[in-house]
Amino acid sequence: MKQNKYDDPEFFANYSQMPRSTGGLNAAGEWQIFRALLPDRNNKKVLDLGCGFGWHCRYAREQQAKFVIGVDLSENMLTRARNSTNDSAIEYRQLAIEDIDFAAEEFDVVISSLAFHYVENFNTVCKKVRHALKPGGSFVLSVEHPIFTALASQDWHHDQEGKRLHWPVDGYQDESQRIARFLDNDVIKYHRTLETYLNTIIDAGFRITRISEPQPSKEVLEEYPEMKDEVRRPIFLLIAAVKN
Amino acid sequence: MKQNKYDDPEFFANYSQMPRSTGGLNAAGEWQIFRALLPDRNNKKVLDLGCGFGWHCRYAREQQAKFVIGVDLSENMLTRARNSTNDSAIEYRQLAIEDIDFAAEEFDVVISSLAFHYVENFNTVCKKVRHALKPGGSFVLSVEHPIFTALASQDWHHDQEGKRLHWPVDGYQDESQRIARFLDNDVIKYHRTLETYLNTIIDAGFRITRISEPQPSKEVLEEYPEMKDEVRRPIFLLIAAVKN
Repeated sequence: MKQNKYDDPEFFANYSQMPRSTGGLNAAGEWQIFRALLPDRNNKKVLDLGCGFGWHCRYAREQQAKFVIGVDLSENMLTRARNSTNDSAIEYRQLAIEDIDFAAEEFDVVISSLAFHYVENFNTVCKKVRHALKPGGSFVLSVEHPIFTALASQDWHHDQEGKRLHWPVDGYQDESQRIARFLDNDVIKYHRTLETYLNTIIDAGFRITRISEPQPSKEVLEEYPEMKDEVRRPIFLLIAAVKN
Repeated sequence: MKQNKYDDPEFFANYSQMPRSTGGLNAAGEWQIFRALLPDRNNKKVLDLGCGFGWHCRYAREQQAKFVIGVDLSENMLTRARNSTNDSAIEYRQLAIEDIDFAAEEFDVVISSLAFHYVENFNTVCKKVRHALKPGGSFVLSVEHPIFTALASQDWHHDQEGKRLHWPVDGYQDESQRIARFLDNDVIKYHRTLETYLNTIIDAGFRITRISEPQPSKEVLEEYPEMKDEVRRPIFLLIAAVKN
């Protein structure tokens, strides 16, 4: 059974109050970097896996995408996404990412923002993405960084006064489920090594074109000063790849 | 002035007693993985950057390489390397890695084992490697992992009884010199993020074909049980790339 935490009312209420939920893409520390990895969307068909509130789908249309499909398992998320647009060139489908089944070479661009660390079988997803992409098509994704997902606690190591001493890493090579706390809830995440993320993408038939471990920009830091410790360890891993 | 720690007599004496110095490639936890990344060497011209005692050079010749050049800055290392072979198809040159100046397309394979974290300008090295490689030639390298080099202390976080609690990460985005302790000496290393390692290789004109964060094999663990904690955090990063 695929996890569908975003349809838990309490969790969804908490998530809806996060800066990236209320402020959209510009409130996400990594957005400027993610955006720079995206190819030209003009007249392109775009698929967004784990589309959430549909911010990326709407942005793709602002960038003149021809047609956008957003996939998410959460009815709550998709209801909000659907209510946020009346653009007939955006279609939302309620579906687990692992269950996508698109025709071969249907899309020019597949994106996914912070969703794959909830997916158990990354290998299957990469193969399905490759199938759905045209040759030369782009696959741009972000996930929680392996340094961030290694320990289920996902928290700094503090001294007795509560000061952040450093980020702890342990169990790195143990690729399995982690029960992490997120927004006061237990959430199932899947820790994978960097090696696994990159080699799985390569083996599925992609060429890696760019990696990023984003830092918040000066502008983002001024608006969200609580992000200052983000330079002390990477929290996200962004990968851009092109179908061979 | 490029660091030449291996010509410090005390440091060299300590290094010479490490398992990988006395036992060679099979005593290096990552060797089986590194070897699997290497292309066929049969009748190929091979360059080894930071060749040390020449283990990799001699192994390349065992694999029927046509000609091998080993480069190292340390006279101590090269004297030992030269004394370990009378093979006229292996040539050793005393040179800093950054200072190589080979003819275009001179080599089929360039390898480097645990040397580039001592090199300040990785970008220059990647460009020179690309220049020296034939089109389609292979570049296979290992470095200390960014998780391992982030903190200069390069040590576990211990409890009061000396038990290893976890691996600490801090200052990850600060790409600069680290004064690390290695074999009871201060050694200058250069911390780079994963993003920098991979993008620099891509930008120099390579295609990434494989990544590895090796774990010691069962056989290595049986012979060197002190390596058991190596699964708790990655210590090395291995990258295989091909010239575009």
